[in-house]
Amino acid sequence: MEFMIKTMIDDNVFRSKFIELREQVTEILASISGCHGFDHTERVLNNARLIAKMENAPDIQIIECAALLHDIGRSEEIASKGKHCHAAFGAKIAAAMLEKMRFPEPFAIQVAECVRKHRYRRGVQPETLAEKIVYDADKLDSIGAVGIGRAFYFAGREGAVLHNSAAEAMAAPEYSHGDSAYREYLMKLRHIEGKLLTEAARKLAAQRAGFMHDFFEQLNRETDLK
Amino acid sequence: MEFMIKTMIDDNVFRSKFIELREQVTEILASISGCHGFDHTERVLNNARLIAKMENAPDIQIIECAALLHDIGRSEEIASKGKHCHAAFGAKIAAAMLEKMRFPEPFAIQVAECVRKHRYRRGVQPETLAEKIVYDADKLDSIGAVGIGRAFYFAGREGAVLHNSAAEAMAAPEYSHGDSAYREYLMKLRHIEGKLLTEAARKLAAQRAGFMHDFFEQLNRETDLK
Repeated sequence: MEFMIKTMIDDNVFRSKFIELREQVTEILASISGCHGFDHTERVLNNARLIAKMENAPDIQIIECAALLHDIGRSEEIASKGKHCHAAFGAKIAAAMLEKMRFPEPFAIQVAECVRKHRYRRGVQPETLAEKIVYDADKLDSIGAVGIGRAFYFAGREGAVLHNSAAEAMAAPEYSHGDSAYREYLMKLRHIEGKLLTEAARKLAAQRAGFMHDFFEQLNRETDLK
Repeated sequence: MEFMIKTMIDDNVFRSKFIELREQVTEILASISGCHGFDHTERVLNNARLIAKMENAPDIQIIECAALLHDIGRSEEIASKGKHCHAAFGAKIAAAMLEKMRFPEPFAIQVAECVRKHRYRRGVQPETLAEKIVYDADKLDSIGAVGIGRAFYFAGREGAVLHNSAAEAMAAPEYSHGDSAYREYLMKLRHIEGKLLTEAARKLAAQRAGFMHDFFEQLNRETDLK
């Protein structure tokens, strides 16, 4: 059985603290446009609430805070050109913010762990249900219509090609001229459904993944590419 | 009955001239990335060939040259920040290129007219079948999966929001932070099907328009916006 400290705050106290926390996060993420701005965080928060409900997760307060804070280290990662990992760095910022706002320490620790583990890397993987839900909520925002939109948005921002063939896409390095939305789909997005950790997220992902698949089929038909 | 000078060149001569013309256009459009680069021109050329076949258009050589040259004035429009219209300016460049390559004058004039009229403005509208086909071929590349991709690509390039509500999108000015892909859809893309001039293009557009409509419905569901 997994080890977990149950930490619940009085709901009224939590709601008022959460509003304040949300305002701080909005301000911090305001400078980040597009794929990882506050709108992404808001969608991840909505996804996390939905998955938590479907999974009957007990730690809804931790999940909500972690979803809100999951990308809080993003601007440090951008500023350091990838040297700082936004998940590891964000976990520290998240813990500091919650402590400053007098959230209980065990609560802050669990939120920070969700933030640290939302980016699946070797040796760092979600273990508790709360950690799995935050991870899945973030991944869910990379697929479906939102995922398609984000992939083309990224290509436009980086000046990559609008579309290319599967062979061209697979041969292109990251951040290159060939780093198209189709490359993102072939290399990452189409594999996400199979990497989700909760039953609820897999259920929500199925339709989105199929939709995304149909989209690129249609794009290939319209452009005469494969 | 519409006035039209029938101009056909020997097919072998045309093919060799067309390859040369295509190389020149590729070079001129190489500096334009994304929404109006050479890949867009190639898709418009494919669309034009398809529509011409479905419409049994007699002037296939004129249509092919005009589709290839339709955006040839694009970089001048960009350089002049919209002062030069790429269609009007492009018509002059197209005529000069064709004359230099010793295409017959009546042929060059008809191609230039297709280029000039591919952008529907007050007082300038496609009249001949060839002009209508080039206009429709260009519009067809703005809808469907390609249209969706181009709209998000543009938003990414301009640093606009990924998505917003219909009310926010409709209230936002062009080239503003709120100039999202959804704004492009609401203001322009959803109306394109009804503005097409040939039966063939309307047939090709129907599925693409429906696909695009479904996409934004799905995007609104995923993001909880309308």
